[in-house]
This record gives sequence, structure tokens and C-alpha cells, in this order.
Amino acid sequence: MSEAFWQHPLPQLSDDHLQRARARQGELTKPPGSLGRLEELACTLAAQQHRAQPGADRVHMSVFAADHGIAADGVSAFPQEVTAQMVANFASGGAAISVLARTLGAELEVINMGVAHSLPDDTGVTSEWLAPGTGNIAHEPAMTEHQASQALQAGDRAAARAAEAGAELFIGGDMGIGNTSSAAALAALLLKGHPEDLVGPGTGLDSTGVARKADKIGQALQRHGNDDDAFRALASLGGFEIAALAGAMIGSSQRGIPVLVDGFIVTSAALAAVRLRPDLRPWLHFSHESEEPGHQHLLRALDARPLLDLGMRLGEGSGAAVAVSLLRSACALHNRMATFSEAGVSDGESS
Amino acid sequence: MSEAFWQHPLPQLSDDHLQRARARQGELTKPPGSLGRLEELACTLAAQQHRAQPGADRVHMSVFAADHGIAADGVSAFPQEVTAQMVANFASGGAAISVLARTLGAELEVINMGVAHSLPDDTGVTSEWLAPGTGNIAHEPAMTEHQASQALQAGDRAAARAAEAGAELFIGGDMGIGNTSSAAALAALLLKGHPEDLVGPGTGLDSTGVARKADKIGQALQRHGNDDDAFRALASLGGFEIAALAGAMIGSSQRGIPVLVDGFIVTSAALAAVRLRPDLRPWLHFSHESEEPGHQHLLRALDARPLLDLGMRLGEGSGAAVAVSLLRSACALHNRMATFSEAGVSDGESS
Repeated sequence: MSEAFWQHPLPQLSDDHLQRARARQGELTKPPGSLGRLEELACTLAAQQHRAQPGADRVHMSVFAADHGIAADGVSAFPQEVTAQMVANFASGGAAISVLARTLGAELEVINMGVAHSLPDDTGVTSEWLAPGTGNIAHEPAMTEHQASQALQAGDRAAARAAEAGAELFIGGDMGIGNTSSAAALAALLLKGHPEDLVGPGTGLDSTGVARKADKIGQALQRHGNDDDAFRALASLGGFEIAALAGAMIGSSQRGIPVLVDGFIVTSAALAAVRLRPDLRPWLHFSHESEEPGHQHLLRALDARPLLDLGMRLGEGSGAAVAVSLLRSACALHNRMATFSEAGVSDGESS
Repeated sequence: MSEAFWQHPLPQLSDDHLQRARARQGELTKPPGSLGRLEELACTLAAQQHRAQPGADRVHMSVFAADHGIAADGVSAFPQEVTAQMVANFASGGAAISVLARTLGAELEVINMGVAHSLPDDTGVTSEWLAPGTGNIAHEPAMTEHQASQALQAGDRAAARAAEAGAELFIGGDMGIGNTSSAAALAALLLKGHPEDLVGPGTGLDSTGVARKADKIGQALQRHGNDDDAFRALASLGGFEIAALAGAMIGSSQRGIPVLVDGFIVTSAALAAVRLRPDLRPWLHFSHESEEPGHQHLLRALDARPLLDLGMRLGEGSGAAVAVSLLRSACALHNRMATFSEAGVSDGESS
């Protein structure tokens, strides 16, 4: 068997572009550092894109949808058919991510990784369908290792489409009733954490529901044992969309496209992906801190400081979509502000 | 003498529109509350604008520039001529706020309230010039009460232009070497705080400079006494641009235009304006938390929770400009997402 794509090393960021971008920030008509995190954001994008003038205009969004066997155990406030209904809603333009993609002028593709219920024919959804949902992780593996490999490769194909379209930024989104349970189980294993720390209300469970969910995840972890190999963890506890997200983030970065990471689900995939390929971490920007409590643990493990903290907890890639404008502002300021010498402004040394 | 414009009560927010907007948020295809602060942001804008579909597309930005007598005492990392140089840079499009305004498609006007150095003729800057900078507040009042009234009225005229242009949102910006000293003095008086808590590095003072600045502000406060009447405080310790900003925020709200407040300088003006007219507070959105340490005290006093925390400390209205996209996202989601019934999605009661 040939080497899997996620075993190939990622490109290096350009230290030359990073240093030149930082020097330029010091020449722009503002006190040094006064644009705060927008300065380093522009410099990091320059290093990732190997460009003097970084950009985030062309954004590719791939939303991966799949069902989760554990949904049968009452771990979500919404019934499983909502996964298929929301996929149709993405496609017809009524969902949050659809609205945000239009507002940004971003490409949005929806990929059916394993939705249990049938979709209408005319949705324009890309099919990478593997099964009608994962196995119930409280009792059985989520998927076979072959399926995990297929899901990662489906993510890589999304990254290839992003590159083909000339994307400057990749955003992955998720849809799947029950997927906060899969993400929490995966996170608990990879972080060697307690289910209670990583489980939250998801779409709106009450405290009894959260306790039931933690109990189910505890069962899943007991069944899986202590094997924290990232690939086997994805297969055993993940979701089809979570594995695809991990593959898409690695595949995007392999093609030189930086990634803007969404909330709890996507960050769980990012952690698995970073465990598969530690050289992925410098390619990731973190968009927001989700209200889902486990997200903080994932962010800390990834040494990530998200850009926004708006109490969002929707998924779909929506938090990342809202943060795109910050990257665009950072690039516009970096590329278009005048320097002290261009504008004839004293640079502060004379006081 | 007739009643000053800032003594006229402000319009009420529409409770009817607020309630209808909240009801709509509960019908959109997402778990209730999952868009976090973007939900309440859209609802508040609906209440402010008395519209079912709130908007932040048409943004009016007024940047008020003026010099400060206290700059002579070495309280800034930049020399005083930078105020005039930066006004020219705003007008020629090279400053941060110029770039951000273009990116947003926002109207940007620059108003000379009292710049000490002369400006080139062809800058397109609106003149409301009162004097070549304020008096040095360590030794004398910043301005006469007549000048303070004129500055407030100049702000009101900017608000009138915003209304004339059909603005849905008003942003005020500031430029003035030395103005963090004036803002800190004003804030210390209005909050009965210590200068040390409200003084920071501004554009980049070292610790010796910060200590000197705090000492000068202490002198200013001693001279002014304990009279915390907001109008007299503006005259005694403020700046021409700070008084104009206070007038512009009141004037905008009187015309039904909500205000997105920038950082330390604009928030000091907002505090003075709220003291002049307590019914202004519901019209204010707070865009970001500045790196300037005194900003936190001002935000707390105004019970304000800013949208962004990016370590910015530039002024000019730049933090507010960066936050506009969050208001636009909130409005787009509110206005354009499908409802559960429109999209045929189960609303979660059936789980």
C-alpha cells in the first residue's frame, strides 16, 4: 500500500515573506503595534501564501455532513432527520452558512459524507457517501479504518477543488446531529481528558441530557481503551465529517492554502489532524471561541487564541465565516496603507 | 439663550421591533441562541432603526482632528506636527481609517476642529476650526465654555450630514497628538478615578513618559477641582475633537442613527455624552476593547461589553470600522436566513 496523503510533509511557511511583512508593518503610518493582532495576522498570511501582499478575498468553504449512530441514545436536542433537512437548507440558501457565504462572495460546497436520511435529488450536494451514519460509539467503532481513510481522502478532494478554484483561504464546516458527542469523545481520548470536561449542551440539551451524553461518551472511551493514535481514534470515535475535515485541513495546507478553523467540531478535527501531521499547526488560524465548553480545552491544547468570542455555537463553519472579515481587514491595511515616507508623516523618533 | 441641542431628549428604541426581532430569531433554522451575541445585536439594531430588517450597509464616519496644548509637556511619543500630517494622510487615502472606509464602502469625512499646523489647501477636509489646539490643561482650561458648545454643535452638524446621506450607522473617529492625556483627565474626573489607572502609553510612551503624563494629568485634575458636570468637564479637560465626538453621538441618536463606538478617546467622549444625556446609552454599540489600559475603566462605567478584543490602540475610528462587518453579518443572518417552517426543518421539540 502506498503512503497515505496525510503522511506527506507540509510546505514550510516563508520566513522571508514573514520578515518583510513585519518590516512593512513598522513603516506604515501608525504607531508600531497599534493594529494589534491584525498586524501579525497579515504577516502570518504573507508567510503562508508566500506573497508580499496577502489576501483573503477568494474563500472556499466545504461543509461536510454526516450522521452519528450515538444520536439513537438521545444525546441531541434535535432528531436525526434534521441532518438531511439542514443539508437541503444549505443547498437552498437558507442556512446561516449559506447567508454568510453569499455575503462574503465565498464558494460554498456541501458534501454528503454519510447522511442517514435521503436528500432531494436537486440539491447540488457533492456525494462522498460512506454509510447511513457511523456506528454507535458507545457500543461499536464509529467506522472501519478503510472508511476513515476514505473520509480523509474525501476531505483532500475538497482541498483540491479549493486549490483549483484559486482559494486563498479554506474554511471547513460541519453538520451532523450528534456530532458534539463524537467530537467530545475524540477530544477526551486525544487530550486524555474526562468526558465531563469535554461534554456540553450542543444544540441545547438540558443538564440531564448532558449527564446522559457524558455517560455514553464514558462508555465509548472504555470500549476504545487508551490507544491515542490519531488515525485509529478518528476511526473508532470520530464522525465521517470529522475525518473529512481533518483530511481537508491537511490537504489545503499541502497545497499552500491557510485554514480558518471554526468551532468545537472543526477544532476536534484540527487536533486529530495536528496529531497526524504536527507540521499542520502553523497553517491554522482560529476564528472564534465557541460557547460549547469543551472548545476551550481543545484551543488550549492547540495553543490557539481565537479571534472572536461572541458566544456562538452553531457549527456549519459559521464562526469562521464571521471572522473572514478580520483577515480581509488585516490584509487591506497591510497592503494599502501608506508608509511614513510615502505620506510625509514623522515617524515618532523626533519627540 | 435657547436650549442647547444636547438637552433635547433622544427617541425611544422600539420595543415592538425588539420583540418581533427576538421572535424571528427563535424561528430561524438554528438552535435558539446559537448565533450568540450576533442575535441580540440584530435585535437591538432593529429596535434602534425601528425596522423589521435592520441594516449596517450605509455607514457614515466622521473623524475629528485637533491639537492639545498638553502635547508641549512631552506626553506623546509623536511630535505635534503629526496631527496635521495625519489629517493630510486621511484625506489622501493612506491612513488605516481611509483604507477601512474604502473596504466597507463607507463615507469618510475628516473635520478639522483645531489643528495647530496648517494643512495643504486641497485636502477636502471640512473646517470647524476653533483654535490652534486647546490650552495646556496642566495649567489652564482646555477651552472656553463657548468653544465647548461650538465643538458639540460641530459634532451635531456631522450627525446631520450622516442623516442627510441616509446613514444606518454612525462612527466617530479621532486624531490629535496628546489626546490620550485629555481623555484620561476627562475620564479620571468623570469616574472619580486616579490618573494612574487611566493613563497609558498612548502611541508608545515608555514607563518614564507614562509617569510624566500621569503627573501632568494629576496637575490638571487639581486645577479643575471636583466639579464633575459633564459640560464643564469637557470644556476644562477635554479636546475639541472629544467634545465634537460627544456632540456627534448625541446628534446621531437624536436622528435615529445608532452609534458604533471606537476605542479609548471615543469612549471618553461617549462617557461625557452619556453624562450629558443618560438616554444616549441604549444607542451605543461598543466595537472593541483597546490595549490602552484606561479603556477598561470607561467600558465598565458604561456597562459596555465590546465586540472585539484584538489589542488595537490606533484610534481614528479604526476599531469601530473593523467591527462593522460583525453588525453586517448579524443583519444578514437575521434578514436572510430561512425559518424552520420555510425550510421544512424540525425545530427540535420532537426529540
